[in-house]
Amino acid sequence: MSKIKNISFDKIVFNSGYWKKRYELNRDVSLKSVRNRFEDTARFEALRFSYKEGQPLPHVYFDSDVAKWIEAVAYLVKSGNPCTEELALCEELIDSMEKNQRSDGYLNSHFQQIEPENIFTKRDAHELYCAGHLLEAAIAYSDATNDTKFLDIMKRYFDCIEKAFITEKTSKFSTPGHEEIELALIKMYEYTKDKKYLDMAMFFIDSRGTCDDVLFNILTKDYDQNAMPVRELTEAVGHAVRATYLFIAVAAAGRVTNDKELISAAERLFDNITTKQMYITGGIGASVKGEALTIEYDLPNLEAYSETCAAIALLLFSLEMQKYGLNAKYPAVIERILYNGLPSSTSIDGRSFFYQNPLEIHIASVNKDVSMAPANRTHYAPRHRSEIFSCSCCPPNINRIYARIGDVFLSEYNDDSGKALVINQFAAITADTENAKLTMSTAFPADGKINISLSNNNYSAVYIRKPEWCESYTTDAVATEKDGYIIIKASKEMSFYIDFSMNVFFAETNPSVRENNGRVALCYGPTVYCLERLDNDFDLGAVSVDVSAALETAKKIPSEEYALPDIELDGFVDEYFPQLYRKATLNKNKTKLRFKPYWTFANREECDMKIWIRGV
Amino acid sequence: MSKIKNISFDKIVFNSGYWKKRYELNRDVSLKSVRNRFEDTARFEALRFSYKEGQPLPHVYFDSDVAKWIEAVAYLVKSGNPCTEELALCEELIDSMEKNQRSDGYLNSHFQQIEPENIFTKRDAHELYCAGHLLEAAIAYSDATNDTKFLDIMKRYFDCIEKAFITEKTSKFSTPGHEEIELALIKMYEYTKDKKYLDMAMFFIDSRGTCDDVLFNILTKDYDQNAMPVRELTEAVGHAVRATYLFIAVAAAGRVTNDKELISAAERLFDNITTKQMYITGGIGASVKGEALTIEYDLPNLEAYSETCAAIALLLFSLEMQKYGLNAKYPAVIERILYNGLPSSTSIDGRSFFYQNPLEIHIASVNKDVSMAPANRTHYAPRHRSEIFSCSCCPPNINRIYARIGDVFLSEYNDDSGKALVINQFAAITADTENAKLTMSTAFPADGKINISLSNNNYSAVYIRKPEWCESYTTDAVATEKDGYIIIKASKEMSFYIDFSMNVFFAETNPSVRENNGRVALCYGPTVYCLERLDNDFDLGAVSVDVSAALETAKKIPSEEYALPDIELDGFVDEYFPQLYRKATLNKNKTKLRFKPYWTFANREECDMKIWIRGV
Repeated sequence: MSKIKNISFDKIVFNSGYWKKRYELNRDVSLKSVRNRFEDTARFEALRFSYKEGQPLPHVYFDSDVAKWIEAVAYLVKSGNPCTEELALCEELIDSMEKNQRSDGYLNSHFQQIEPENIFTKRDAHELYCAGHLLEAAIAYSDATNDTKFLDIMKRYFDCIEKAFITEKTSKFSTPGHEEIELALIKMYEYTKDKKYLDMAMFFIDSRGTCDDVLFNILTKDYDQNAMPVRELTEAVGHAVRATYLFIAVAAAGRVTNDKELISAAERLFDNITTKQMYITGGIGASVKGEALTIEYDLPNLEAYSETCAAIALLLFSLEMQKYGLNAKYPAVIERILYNGLPSSTSIDGRSFFYQNPLEIHIASVNKDVSMAPANRTHYAPRHRSEIFSCSCCPPNINRIYARIGDVFLSEYNDDSGKALVINQFAAITADTENAKLTMSTAFPADGKINISLSNNNYSAVYIRKPEWCESYTTDAVATEKDGYIIIKASKEMSFYIDFSMNVFFAETNPSVRENNGRVALCYGPTVYCLERLDNDFDLGAVSVDVSAALETAKKIPSEEYALPDIELDGFVDEYFPQLYRKATLNKNKTKLRFKPYWTFANREECDMKIWIRGV
Repeated sequence: MSKIKNISFDKIVFNSGYWKKRYELNRDVSLKSVRNRFEDTARFEALRFSYKEGQPLPHVYFDSDVAKWIEAVAYLVKSGNPCTEELALCEELIDSMEKNQRSDGYLNSHFQQIEPENIFTKRDAHELYCAGHLLEAAIAYSDATNDTKFLDIMKRYFDCIEKAFITEKTSKFSTPGHEEIELALIKMYEYTKDKKYLDMAMFFIDSRGTCDDVLFNILTKDYDQNAMPVRELTEAVGHAVRATYLFIAVAAAGRVTNDKELISAAERLFDNITTKQMYITGGIGASVKGEALTIEYDLPNLEAYSETCAAIALLLFSLEMQKYGLNAKYPAVIERILYNGLPSSTSIDGRSFFYQNPLEIHIASVNKDVSMAPANRTHYAPRHRSEIFSCSCCPPNINRIYARIGDVFLSEYNDDSGKALVINQFAAITADTENAKLTMSTAFPADGKINISLSNNNYSAVYIRKPEWCESYTTDAVATEKDGYIIIKASKEMSFYIDFSMNVFFAETNPSVRENNGRVALCYGPTVYCLERLDNDFDLGAVSVDVSAALETAKKIPSEEYALPDIELDGFVDEYFPQLYRKATLNKNKTKLRFKPYWTFANREECDMKIWIRGV
């Protein structure tokens, strides 16, 4: 059905600037940091199948943690990074899996070593989730190395799964408690063209919400998107990562089967998330309770859960939706995540990670819950990134997303005049596609000017997404504009620039979001900014700005530490007074406010942070 | 020590208006509503000592519920209300207590009937709390009826308590898990002049925070004010009712013993609560977790717990502090509670009650916690008053506070020129004191004009508290002003008026309260107003006012249902737009806003409610 396809990450080379730094930080620091902590916590050990009583238990989700790390290595290798040491570890683990796979094909480090009697009986034990992640890793590994050993292991395992869940129905449940396997199966179908995997994916997608499956007892069926068939779902509900992984599979299944109901569900759920349940950072899943999407327009800042894996899932969902056709709203969501909710997950030094990504920090509030000892007051988001968590799904997810981040930049699109190149995102890259060699040079996201050159070009046109924040642009090419894209007719060899005249501006939120009524967020191009108390020594809630006057005073202050400038502008801080209440004066004093990119928060000593401040 | 004393409620008669209506509503409706529901729920049955297996269990706190109801009846009788039926029930219950009191003096309907083996072993079972409430009831009953039977029962019970806790120390704990007994014991000391009761009070006050007592396991020692001696406490912490009942005892003990440390603790804790932890309604205890005071300046509106009993406790604490000397801050807090946090507890028809008093209702948010079934989503305050709760401490507390509400209006104060009459609060009352007959006629709180006449007067002067909200006043008497009081020299027979020129105004909160930054609350004299969505059909978070312009448009609209007018004024509602985020325009549309007195909220069909709206 689709006239558009994404250009794969392995065609892209990062030349300089923000994205080169990010890519290399992930490859050279984050990947190793995760590996080291995974060794410390016996995560790799689990797949060595050497568990002995008294040793750390292989947890039910360890296989998925390791799988994502292997997947990251595979993507890096596919892009030409040698990763010698990492590949050696992957090979060791794959050999171990081959050796320890049961004769019936079953493979799970927890159940085989700890409770083999419970295989396929515990819906809440992440068993099929682990299988899905292993399958994704195997596909990536096979694709990167041309070594099919891992994929063959997985083929045997998925035959076993097919038998237990579909053919013989010996399993004690029908659908996974945590979705993931569905999207992995469609990837497998697209990689192998074997329809069996598509059929399995459709079985898991369509059984959901139509069978007796339950998850724990305290939870509603909404938690795991199990209250009704996903085809009927009108609102994204429940655990944000589970929901979005399912929706990715729904979108992909719709695309490969051309099933209108699935396509329409995917579109509806994407719109529901992104127009009613998404933070300005691209984070989703507002509530710590159930790590869940809650109700429309419920986007608390201080209590924001906004799990890193959920932002990554929404990025992947958007990337999948991008395959439906030329529609600027999908890459716009990706841009939001790329420069905000994704980089916030990782410390500037690349070593440590956020599981939750709060939109505000108010240190004093951490102690609000006086009903329990300070150590147990976990209701408020952490203020520091960590190298590892007991549930450490996010760090290897960060590894694998940055390893394939090249996927987001370019598409090919068949328009009336032929095959066009679509530039979805902006970075200093070279791309060697079948139809041209593209070079973009830019300081984006620090600057909006993009120099584009094409050589040996067969594309008929270049479509350049016009970012939502761009009000006007200049170019030295002949350009037309359509549906959020700037279209430039292409020739064999060409060079041109486009300048989005990136400015500092304030954003506001739909009035239905009670948390942000009357508040504005400073943005510079795609990057959302925040105040940290270390730079602004007063209650951040007492801050306000006169929006237009403030922008006139805005000054960019270059930062040495990261590609983006700090921004300083004039604002106000409310007048302090001793009483708790008094007749309203609304007196306030002028002050300088210094903003930093949101994603750089919490990289210094612990302090309050705030994005949304009062504006008039 | 003290040169000031409160004039007792039994000297006061309500002649008309707000207070007559409130007083009679409590006597004629609320008291009967509570009685009926207490019969339904076997609360009176508990003290009939007729429990048989299979019947509803007498709960550990039932004695205290009944005690407060008896105390209310006693106050009404003392004021000359016959209350024939109610008195008959009191007599029946007192006879039953006498008959069923153990030979060692012990008296508790739960422990005697359900677990006698556990007497004085369970610190979390409200045993001494019940004893304290029974003692307060017995004092009131004896004082009202001159029948000492109930008081004699209590004397025997308190001898038993003294033996178990102090003389022989056979009890398994030293201090009550829920304070109350301390303040009751000081009341008993003041009523009987028997120093034994003061000594017992001091034992419980000073043992607290110095012994090994714990309460449950999940809680910190802060929860029951047990982490340190109250003399050292600098912040009010933990369960709001427990804390404030303790502080009342500390204030009273300081007064009767002239113990400077206790006096200073009481003053410090009163100031901490009222300048850092009190809602504009006079409610305290912000958090549902532990029903607790949390941290300074933590005053969430939507999640406000603000238990009715805590507002009543703060009223009683203020009344006790008022005995320290002439200081307008104490009656100012009482005024705040009288016209806001106390009446909000009761439906306009007098039949049903709030346990929690939210400062905001946002119906959609009730369903935010999607991790559990809708019926279990109890994190947000109820939207309806109920006639009874499983823990129904508040309704009889409301009964007893309104029955003695006359206590708040007048004091006598010895100044340099003789004995002066102090008018703390304003109402249409007649008061027959030893030194004069006072008549106040006023439509307060609907109007600020007070006509005062004294006949047969021996007071040297009249001190009239100038309310905090009053910016200027007129009077036809010769008046001086000092420390928040208007002083008028008195003659044998005199009449004068004072007009506080009550106006509509907006209040603001200390900037340290992050919940209310940039927000204002409409007030009319002492009454805080709110918006209800039934009268203002848009998201209440999208509302704002231009403070000075809005006040110029304010119109009072008389209400038939209660003494106060509605107020209508010009405000704004933010412009709606379809996206979730856009470049800030801060566009808004002019609209009429209709406010009602806060305490009248939730008397119609369920809807959103908001006090604090954005102001510029």
